[in-house]
Amino acid sequence: MTLQALVENKVKEAKTAARALARLGSGVKNRALLRMADRLEAGKESLQEANLKDLAAARDKGLSDAMIDRLRLDDARIAAMATGLREVAELPDPVGEVMRMWKRPNNLRIGKVRVPIGVIGIIYESRPNVTADAASLCLKAGNAVVLRGGSEAIHSNEAIVKILADAAREAGVPDGALQFIDRTDREAVMHLLKMDRYVDLIIPRGGEGLIRTVCENATIPVIKHDKGVCHTYIDSDADGEMAIRIVMNAKCQRPGVCNAMETLLIHEATAETLLAELGRRLTEAGVEIRGCPRTCELVPGSVNATETDWHTEYNDLILSVRVVASLSEAMDHINQYGSQHSEAIVTRDYERARRFLEEVDASAVYVNASTRFTDGYEFGFGAEIGISTNRLHARGPMGLEELTSYKFIIFGDGQIRE
Amino acid sequence: MTLQALVENKVKEAKTAARALARLGSGVKNRALLRMADRLEAGKESLQEANLKDLAAARDKGLSDAMIDRLRLDDARIAAMATGLREVAELPDPVGEVMRMWKRPNNLRIGKVRVPIGVIGIIYESRPNVTADAASLCLKAGNAVVLRGGSEAIHSNEAIVKILADAAREAGVPDGALQFIDRTDREAVMHLLKMDRYVDLIIPRGGEGLIRTVCENATIPVIKHDKGVCHTYIDSDADGEMAIRIVMNAKCQRPGVCNAMETLLIHEATAETLLAELGRRLTEAGVEIRGCPRTCELVPGSVNATETDWHTEYNDLILSVRVVASLSEAMDHINQYGSQHSEAIVTRDYERARRFLEEVDASAVYVNASTRFTDGYEFGFGAEIGISTNRLHARGPMGLEELTSYKFIIFGDGQIRE
Repeated sequence: MTLQALVENKVKEAKTAARALARLGSGVKNRALLRMADRLEAGKESLQEANLKDLAAARDKGLSDAMIDRLRLDDARIAAMATGLREVAELPDPVGEVMRMWKRPNNLRIGKVRVPIGVIGIIYESRPNVTADAASLCLKAGNAVVLRGGSEAIHSNEAIVKILADAAREAGVPDGALQFIDRTDREAVMHLLKMDRYVDLIIPRGGEGLIRTVCENATIPVIKHDKGVCHTYIDSDADGEMAIRIVMNAKCQRPGVCNAMETLLIHEATAETLLAELGRRLTEAGVEIRGCPRTCELVPGSVNATETDWHTEYNDLILSVRVVASLSEAMDHINQYGSQHSEAIVTRDYERARRFLEEVDASAVYVNASTRFTDGYEFGFGAEIGISTNRLHARGPMGLEELTSYKFIIFGDGQIRE
Repeated sequence: MTLQALVENKVKEAKTAARALARLGSGVKNRALLRMADRLEAGKESLQEANLKDLAAARDKGLSDAMIDRLRLDDARIAAMATGLREVAELPDPVGEVMRMWKRPNNLRIGKVRVPIGVIGIIYESRPNVTADAASLCLKAGNAVVLRGGSEAIHSNEAIVKILADAAREAGVPDGALQFIDRTDREAVMHLLKMDRYVDLIIPRGGEGLIRTVCENATIPVIKHDKGVCHTYIDSDADGEMAIRIVMNAKCQRPGVCNAMETLLIHEATAETLLAELGRRLTEAGVEIRGCPRTCELVPGSVNATETDWHTEYNDLILSVRVVASLSEAMDHINQYGSQHSEAIVTRDYERARRFLEEVDASAVYVNASTRFTDGYEFGFGAEIGISTNRLHARGPMGLEELTSYKFIIFGDGQIRE
């Protein structure tokens, strides 16, 4: 069988399963999720045996310790995957919800009803826990899923999928609902990206290279998660204590994630009184500061920021800092360099808060809070499949609802069009 | 200037205008729409002068009478465009609507707010009235629009755009909000389809060839309107009178549109009593019937349907007819040959109505009504930019809401992430 035929068989099976899945009651889906969780825990030893092969290969390939750590399936990570599955079982089922229903003058009653999207392809990189996360969210929203994980985690992913698929089938989920492409060739991805007859949506999860490849080659709609170059603007009228607390949290609490702050904008009046202190606190926390000329005057140890810095998602303990003369200048900077992910203002002024919320175009715009809250759990969605930087279909944190489409159901009593 | 630079300049101007447009109040937008309507009517003579050039060129090229008629801007069509603009002014502004707002346990208040998509490219074929329709809907939803009409209507489109853009500017709409690509080279479209830095969405309106070209070449998300192969299934338990009324309406009221019926499925018991009469009525109405063997027995003058017929959107007075043994067989046929546009069942049976609504996957699923109602006006959206056959972002009739995205606004009082 050619590689293309192999991929095509899998997506065809997923398509067939998707029809039956769309009609599956929440009871069956939830029982399946709970059984999947139990089986993952019970299968710990076989999972770790498979994982050892990936870890050994990673060492042979000379991967970094950080990379190797992300691959590891220790007891805690297996328990966390099981907990995640049980949490998804607890969430309300989005499928079948009547989002809206209305009556027309001719007595037609029209309802807008949530239905699954169909077949979702998830292309991801090293961390094997994505396998369980993605499978559980897609299943709960009634979608068939075609998983394609990274080559480094191939043995772990295969072992996880085997356990999940068996458990799902035993619980009454249609055969073929959970597909795994067990070939690590790059061509397998290329074939998958062209299967628009069978696959309705592709979600890539990984680095810039992966996302670019997917966007450039897919004939299927893609919901992507680009970079997050997030700003915090401290207004002339900010509460200093609050500003420091928010800045420290947005930069330092977990610098490696997309909703961490990369650039601090600060009004010149506030810079005068607050920036030296803020610089000291950041430096103490190990943050390297790359600033505009005024910042360099006020913060000992800071270096000059280059044009590139303003565009950069450091994902690290580095912060760009610019002193600005006004809210407008801050918003111009955000418009020019931001990635429309998460932007915050710290202020006590009503009108400037209002303008910031209105005029800044980003998936999440904050007043007086840390940008770190942009996240499906923190927003109350219960879970997330990712944070979309698209403007269509889903923007920002994506939970179960964002994994659905809708159809209109129309109840008539013989209406015809005049 | 190269063609690419010309297109790029236009989409860049649209992008700049889009920012200001997003903040424009409904008052300005509505005044602009009313002024656009007034100016179209006042400019009737200049429009018809430009239109004459297109009509003459069409005759020189030997276009069909039907094509030439679609190009024509007579008084009634100009009045209809003006009325359309005024109707859009009357519709509620979707921008700024808080779709949902909730409070988190940490007292963060999160709102989901409608915002414009940004820049929308519309690529369309002959009918010049699309120019005014698309411009008005995009403007009302706060989007900049880049229009690219067909070469046959180039002079008419240019004249319409000139009037609309001047009127909009005078009313306070930012410069550049309405762009028109006045080059008819096919390469202009190809360049536009790749401008993903500036254009957020492409909506093609036209025939299969146009849609295929757009889907295969765009690096921008596309919402497309594929074909409509719509079915009506007459159940064993249907009201015969109602069935005849619905079938005649769905097939004959306007056979050239996407929500017209192309295939009739009829239960064998009902076929026995009803199909001869139905066949007679259809034949009298000038409908050619292509049927399964049983249909050919029951309906004099019908011919054998081929496999191709079941897949075909005739857009004409031709109907495929198949006698089926059960609801399941009808739904299998719909799943295999349907285009997931509009599907109807005629029945008095509660359980079969329920199953049809639940199990048929289409943008609109009807019980006891004509499929002809799938339309933004008939659904009560007030207007439509088209009928989406996508599953993502928008499915079925698309009104103003479907021309928006959303952002989250978050009100804090100093919250940081633990």
